[in-house]
Amino acid sequence: MTTFKLVLEYDGTQYAGWQRQPNAPTIQAAVEEALAAIAQTRLTIIGAGRTDAGVHAFGQVASFRTDRGLSQREWLRALNAHLPADISALSVKAVPDHFHARYSANGKLYEYHLMNRSERAPLLRERAWMLYKPLDFAAMTEAAAYLTGSHDFSSFETAPTDNENPQCRLQRADLRRQGDLIILSFYADRFLKQMVRSMVGTLVEVGQGKRTAADMRTVLAARARAAAGRTAPAHGLYLVRVDYTDGSIPSLP
Amino acid sequence: MTTFKLVLEYDGTQYAGWQRQPNAPTIQAAVEEALAAIAQTRLTIIGAGRTDAGVHAFGQVASFRTDRGLSQREWLRALNAHLPADISALSVKAVPDHFHARYSANGKLYEYHLMNRSERAPLLRERAWMLYKPLDFAAMTEAAAYLTGSHDFSSFETAPTDNENPQCRLQRADLRRQGDLIILSFYADRFLKQMVRSMVGTLVEVGQGKRTAADMRTVLAARARAAAGRTAPAHGLYLVRVDYTDGSIPSLP
Repeated sequence: MTTFKLVLEYDGTQYAGWQRQPNAPTIQAAVEEALAAIAQTRLTIIGAGRTDAGVHAFGQVASFRTDRGLSQREWLRALNAHLPADISALSVKAVPDHFHARYSANGKLYEYHLMNRSERAPLLRERAWMLYKPLDFAAMTEAAAYLTGSHDFSSFETAPTDNENPQCRLQRADLRRQGDLIILSFYADRFLKQMVRSMVGTLVEVGQGKRTAADMRTVLAARARAAAGRTAPAHGLYLVRVDYTDGSIPSLP
Repeated sequence: MTTFKLVLEYDGTQYAGWQRQPNAPTIQAAVEEALAAIAQTRLTIIGAGRTDAGVHAFGQVASFRTDRGLSQREWLRALNAHLPADISALSVKAVPDHFHARYSANGKLYEYHLMNRSERAPLLRERAWMLYKPLDFAAMTEAAAYLTGSHDFSSFETAPTDNENPQCRLQRADLRRQGDLIILSFYADRFLKQMVRSMVGTLVEVGQGKRTAADMRTVLAARARAAAGRTAPAHGLYLVRVDYTDGSIPSLP
């Protein structure tokens, strides 16, 4: 048996998210279907992050185990021949058997794209959240800085479960402009459910003048979802990269 | 009667191009339908460039004349309420009656997007031409420079007509990288039919080592379509901006 690490890019628009579910197309099911067609047997994959319906990925990571004797290159070619046009395998690498796409991950980078101009952008529909009134970029940047560090992020978690650790180390939370597009980047060791979308929704309220940047401290301290802002729409979110420390796992580009 | 200048962004994927035709959806027809719904009478628009099927625009310009007494702002609001999601009106301005979107234009900027990496990019399908083998960027840049200046561009014209002037002044032809994306920019006083796509197809052959950069001189001198390379696919092409010199016409952003 060999364990493989798979890096995937996808347009999440047509999918009900990563995780397999009955009666709805999911990324996991599409990839497993391609793998089964190649291996001629059912294979299960484990994803690094369970992206929501409509969320995109530039670098989702998944792992699978198989005894089919194909090389990395053969898996890559065969996968891209079998995957639908909105999913692409960027690389396939053999990794040590203890590799687990989710538990071995020690850092993830997410980006959120906001289109901020007075008229909608047809070329970015399903790719960015359209906000028509000018946002206060400086206030949002200041607010984002309050979020960095090790905190209990319960205020930004949807449907928390008792047994989940709400502590995350957010190493990066910043904004940059690209024309009328505002790109927010978040890097952390781990993320809670819908945490990025809740942070973005709250930062947008700062940008709209509904909250001050310093409010972020109060929101974090509340440890209650009601203290934060609305959840930003899924279609502006991108899972960009997943990092692994284990020296034997090649790091992503 | 007032003449209005309209700037449009669109995703051309679902359209058979700009120009109205029977039994196929076109950008012109979609915009005229929105205008008719607002004005309660048929209005005809003139576009600055007749984009092909699948070609996109960040800044197509069209003009129309009407005696409906709506303000610029009212036209803009009403248009975006009536246009489909893949077309957006970016601005509407009243202009002098002699303004003609096509004949008054004195410069156009096109961009062509090439995605150059070993695996396909799902998030850019219908947005960029995917080329999987590494292109020689330096050779393409050198080749593009040979195209600038005032030349007879017949070698890059599809289906030329006897009465059309084949002379164009290409002021800019350059390439830049954005990650794995190569963006080619072309600015000229006027363009012949499929000229940008033919130039891109020929430059790609230089990038693939099938032609040398200096071949561009021979191609131009031949004044025959057969001397140039293939026509690049429509879905990588964007009409970015149309410029007008008349001082009374506000220049685009």
